[in-house]
Order: sequence, then structure tokens, then C-alpha cells
Amino acid sequence: MYMSHLECPKCGATHDPHKLTQLCSCGSPLLVRYDLEKVKANFKKSDLIGRKPDLWRYRELLPLVDEKNKVSLGEGMTPLIHCDTLGNEIGLPNLYLKDEGIIPSGTFKSRGAAVGVSRAKELGVKALAMPTNGNAGAAWAIYCAKAGIKAYIVMPVDAPAITRNECAIAGAQFYLVNGLISDAGKIVGRAVAKYGWMDASTLKEPYRIEGKKTMGLEIAEQMNWEVPDVILYPTGGGVGLIGIYKALKELQAIGWIGEKLPRLVAVQAAGCAPIVKAYEEKKPASEFWNNASTVAFGITVPKALGDFLVLEAVYNTGGCAVAVSDEEILRDQAEIAAKEGLFICPEGAATLAAAKKLLADGWIKPHEKVVMLNTGTGLKYPDTVRVEVPTLQPDEDIPVA
Amino acid sequence: MYMSHLECPKCGATHDPHKLTQLCSCGSPLLVRYDLEKVKANFKKSDLIGRKPDLWRYRELLPLVDEKNKVSLGEGMTPLIHCDTLGNEIGLPNLYLKDEGIIPSGTFKSRGAAVGVSRAKELGVKALAMPTNGNAGAAWAIYCAKAGIKAYIVMPVDAPAITRNECAIAGAQFYLVNGLISDAGKIVGRAVAKYGWMDASTLKEPYRIEGKKTMGLEIAEQMNWEVPDVILYPTGGGVGLIGIYKALKELQAIGWIGEKLPRLVAVQAAGCAPIVKAYEEKKPASEFWNNASTVAFGITVPKALGDFLVLEAVYNTGGCAVAVSDEEILRDQAEIAAKEGLFICPEGAATLAAAKKLLADGWIKPHEKVVMLNTGTGLKYPDTVRVEVPTLQPDEDIPVA
Repeated sequence: MYMSHLECPKCGATHDPHKLTQLCSCGSPLLVRYDLEKVKANFKKSDLIGRKPDLWRYRELLPLVDEKNKVSLGEGMTPLIHCDTLGNEIGLPNLYLKDEGIIPSGTFKSRGAAVGVSRAKELGVKALAMPTNGNAGAAWAIYCAKAGIKAYIVMPVDAPAITRNECAIAGAQFYLVNGLISDAGKIVGRAVAKYGWMDASTLKEPYRIEGKKTMGLEIAEQMNWEVPDVILYPTGGGVGLIGIYKALKELQAIGWIGEKLPRLVAVQAAGCAPIVKAYEEKKPASEFWNNASTVAFGITVPKALGDFLVLEAVYNTGGCAVAVSDEEILRDQAEIAAKEGLFICPEGAATLAAAKKLLADGWIKPHEKVVMLNTGTGLKYPDTVRVEVPTLQPDEDIPVA
Repeated sequence: MYMSHLECPKCGATHDPHKLTQLCSCGSPLLVRYDLEKVKANFKKSDLIGRKPDLWRYRELLPLVDEKNKVSLGEGMTPLIHCDTLGNEIGLPNLYLKDEGIIPSGTFKSRGAAVGVSRAKELGVKALAMPTNGNAGAAWAIYCAKAGIKAYIVMPVDAPAITRNECAIAGAQFYLVNGLISDAGKIVGRAVAKYGWMDASTLKEPYRIEGKKTMGLEIAEQMNWEVPDVILYPTGGGVGLIGIYKALKELQAIGWIGEKLPRLVAVQAAGCAPIVKAYEEKKPASEFWNNASTVAFGITVPKALGDFLVLEAVYNTGGCAVAVSDEEILRDQAEIAAKEGLFICPEGAATLAAAKKLLADGWIKPHEKVVMLNTGTGLKYPDTVRVEVPTLQPDEDIPVA
């Protein structure tokens, strides 16, 4: 275990990692720091050979102190698929999709939940609470079930319906709210203040990022430690993008990748694009986005607590932020399914729409290696697919034109 | 490539594996055979080290001739989860679940589709057709999309609704039928006779088994080549069980596992239990089950073409066949989610119900190592979960008793 301390990226304060800490006293999220010199000395790429294909293979860069507290459902090492048919058609032959649908609960949220819940267990937490756009709540609900931790989940009435089933069957205490995730967050805030539960809201505890960062570690390993030119990430709270950036910096520090970093692209829906607006105005943080609405419900986050970290990752890698319309999202969700067999979620489809835009703009070059991050399976979003299917009687034939 | 020929398990006839062959002329399904002596000489356990964690890592035991025909979405090496909380509670501390929900399309059908469609592509197939209880059709639809093969899919109106979305978005030609999968099969039979499409019905082509058998290879590898005492498998068409048995025999032949085989258990729903009836009557084949009906829709198969192979695997391993009720299935689906965080499908939950029964009977001993095969994610079966959730207004508090 190489975790050394928790660090505030805003005021620089350090905190003890061996007790439950939420935000810094200055209000900022905290980041986990490791003794990277020691990691560099003791952890070699060849150590990965033969380790299980889950995110715990990178344990030297993870915060768990004692293996016995690990709460795992087999999450991680999701496929990196070469989209050759589609890529060739749109003029990007080196187009890849990292498919986070192939993971427990069907979304990348399970990474944050696995590491977050494991650390909660390690720190003796008995109950936690969180607001969610659905998928994070579902993931934390199942990992809390495995860990024996009580989970209070609050989600908007418009969150994907299937995430209710997940929370229910996992035995979570859960509630809908007539409002957005920001409303759910306020309800959770009042409850944790009153009952002393752990607050598992996005970035209000430092370990979810550590789980999410393994996406970056995996992309690097799957590309044989030669990072791609561009990574497109559908951005709501932005934890995954912050995590991928953190992972890449840590890989640099231990000498596993070189100077080059991929340009990180924050993709948002036009109906909720606070990060894009901040990027276009060259600002270090975003403003609350009013009347947020998009079919890509998971990225309906009007104001992310970690917005400054997302923008920092974008600026520092020469990346950008780009918004796409719901029409483009649904169009590209259908296109990648029909051409690549990938039934992805609308949030993931937003990255394809963004890749096309940036290629047309010349910001992405045709020869570049581009990774789209699909954050979840399309199975959780039945309403985004139009189904028209004829019904036959047993004695009828298939009508072939 | 070590594939030598196709063999009929009924009449012993052999067939050329390098052209498209469906059933044997005697009407039996065909099995792929390999030159196992050569495999034994050239393939070592250590060759697996460093190979990608997907089913293609076992390529020496797979029928693909040319790697370039591989149609892959990253399928395989699904988690094997130790259900320690639940296992200890019911008195089976060595209880494991192989979770086939963590795979493209969310079910084990993707294994058969990956290998089946790859071989179809290799053999020049341009269009294929199949009846399905939903999940197989969805899997073949997405792999056919990736391969550029036209897929005609016919499924019962009662098949899980989400599988319609998968077929639709993948661009399949698909139809519902007012009836059971046997009715869909007749429609497909008439169409392939008329149009010359490949018939991808269960066991009517030899390659789906080869994909499914990788579950057996993985269980052996994940248990470090010491096979468990019992494997419980939810049995409809039974291809997975046939495949697991075939895999284990092949592993014996190449010397990777010893004499001991796991006892294979065919689990069926009481509402459709032709294999169980045949087993209880010590018969080599089953009879058509009338008025089949169960919540575990994927195993609603009134008469499986490969019933004799399923029963052979059960008899030859000292296994058994057992039926469980819909009530037990739904009870255990909820229990494993709440205690292990595993949101599995009703078919998978049937294996837990069966394990409890066989433990109570003394057929399974408390110390034995038992693997339950969960064939798919619970996400595809929202109707099996009862959700009761209160809705709060933004200014309301979580009501804590």
C-alpha cells in the first residue's frame, strides 16, 4: 500500500488518509496521493502479467490498505474495441471505443463504487447516502449490498427506470425527487448532517476518483503503454475525466508512459453544457446551467463540484470541450449499433457525435488514434430506441420483399 | 488451427469442416472435433499468460481458421464471484457464481454468437435466420451487425422486451410470433428452405457450442485447473451444458485437468422441465413439454434438439436434473442481489434455488465447491423486480424511522 495522504487541489492542505474525510475544510474535493517514488521502485509492468483482469490489478495505485476489505463483483478491464467499419467510413481509421457497458451494473459507475465502497468498509462506515442520476446510485447500491453497508439513494423521477430496479433488489433505502440531481443533493446534504452518514456524493469523498481512474490505466495498458492522441469523455460530474488525467500523470511519474498525453475532450449535451461554456470563455470554473435537459440523462449535471479539475485536465492536455445535440446523439447511437454491433448509451454516443465534429473542424486529424469512452450499456435506456416490429401468426411466413 | 472434422454424435458420420454444414444427414446436431494430440503437444497452460481476457485466448480449441474473420466485441472471461455471505448463510461456504451478465448484450448468448458469426463470416455466409427466446437473437443481431451479415430473427411476443430494442438498433430483420420458440422455429425452417439462408437455430450449426464451451474452459482456468465438484446450469436448449461438458473432456484429453469431472446439474423451471422428467425416468431423450410456462423465459424450451447430449453429460458426470418453481426463482433472485450485490436473471437464480434443494437432499455436501452459472444480467428482466419507491419534493427530508 503506497497511499501517503489526501491533498486539496485548491488550498494545498493535506489530510490523514486513514480516517473518513469528505471535503477539505476549504470546500474543495480531495485527491488521494501516493508515494510514487516507491511505487516506481517496486511496481513493474511485468507485475501485471497473470493478474486477474479487473481493476484491482493496479493495486499499487489504489487506496485499499487491506485486501480483506475489497468489495468486488469482477469490475474492470472492459473491452477496447476497434471500430474499423465505422472509423473507415467517417475517415478515422484508428477509432476505438472503450466499452464500459461490460461491467457489473452495466456502467462505469461500478468502478467508483467498487473502490469507494471498499474504502468505506475499510474505514468502518455503516451507512452512506448519495444523490444520483440513476446509474451511480444503482452501482453503489449493489456494492453496498455486497459490503453490508446501508445505502440511502435519492434520484430524480426522470432517471432511467431500470436503475430503480437495481436499487430495489439490492435492498437500498431509496427515494425519487421531483427535480434534478442538484435537488437530490440538497436532500442528501440535510440527511447526512442530521444522521452522520457518510456522504458519497460525487467528489465529496476522495475514493470514487481512484476507481474511475482505472479507465485511464486500462486504456494505457490495452494500448501497450502508448497512449492515444485523443480521449473523448461524456462529461456530467466529470469524475472519470479527472480520474483518467490523474491516472496518466501517475503513469508518467512512475515512468510507464512518456511525455505525451492524450488530448482530453469533455463532451456535453447542448441542453446542459456548463463545462463547454466555461471552456469557450477560457474560464477556470463553470456556472450553474439553468433548465438543463438532454436525452443523455447521465450527464445532466448543471454545476459539477469538480468543474475546475475537469477544465484543468482539458487545458493541461491541450484538449477541448464540445457540445452535441440530442438529435446527433440518437443518430450516432443508432449508427454505431448498426455498423459495429455496439449498443451503447446516449452519453457514450455523444462522444461519436463529438468525434465527427472535431474531425470536420480539423481539430482531430484523420490519422490520429482516438478513444471514445462509452460509459454504459444501451440496455439501460430502452426509450432511446425506436422499435417497429411486425407480429406473425405461427402459420405465417417471413415477408421477404 | 487444430480443427479436424465435424462429427455426428448419433451416427458417427464425419463431415468436412471447411464448408457450411447444418445438421448431419441423420438429423442430429454435429460436433466440432480437433486434433487433440497436436493441441496437447503444442498448447501449454503458460501460453495463456498475457493473452487478452476474452474467449479467444483459447484459440487452439476454437474452430476459427483465419484470425481476420474474428468478429469480437470483447466477450468472455466473465467474473467468477465467491458468494461468501450467502454461501455461509445457507451452509455452502464454497459457493461461486459465474456471472455471464458481464458480457456484450448482457447474456452468455454472446459467446455462441461470437464464434458462430465468426465462422459464418469465414464460410462466406451473407444472411442467416434463427428463432429465439430473445437473448440469442439479440446477441446474433449485434454480432451480425459487426460482421456485415444480414440477420433474420423471430421471437415470441412474450420474450423480454429489451431484446427487441437490441435487434432493432442493430438493424436486424426481426419479427414477433404469437406463440413459443418452437413456433418461431417452424417459421424460420420454412424461410431457410425457401431462401437458402444459413439456419442459426440452436444446434442446427456446429459452432455455437464451441463459443459456449469457453465457459467451461474459463471456470477451469479461473479455478487454477482444479474443477469444482458441481456446476449448476439453467437448461433450456442446453447448449451451454453440452459445451461445458465438451470443454472438460477436451481439457482432459490435452492433460490440463485430471480424471475428476464436476457433476453437471441441468436446472429447469417446474413449468417447463422436459429434461428433468427424462432424467427421473432414466431416459436418454426428452419428450415435448406441453403448456410450457415460467418466469425464467430463456429456459422455456419444450423440446431441445440436443436433449440427448444434455442427458449424456448429466449421466456421464454423475450429475442430475432438478426443477424449481417460479416462486423459488424470484425469491432467490432477490436474495442473491440483497446479500451479494448480484443482480442476475431469473434463469441464473434458478441455479441458487436448485443448489439449496440439492444441499437439503444431501446430494450436495456442505464442503463441496459449487459453481452456479448465471446466464445473464437482471437488467434485461425489469418485470421480475417489485419496486416501491416514495417520491419526495425538493424541500422534503428523507423519512428515517
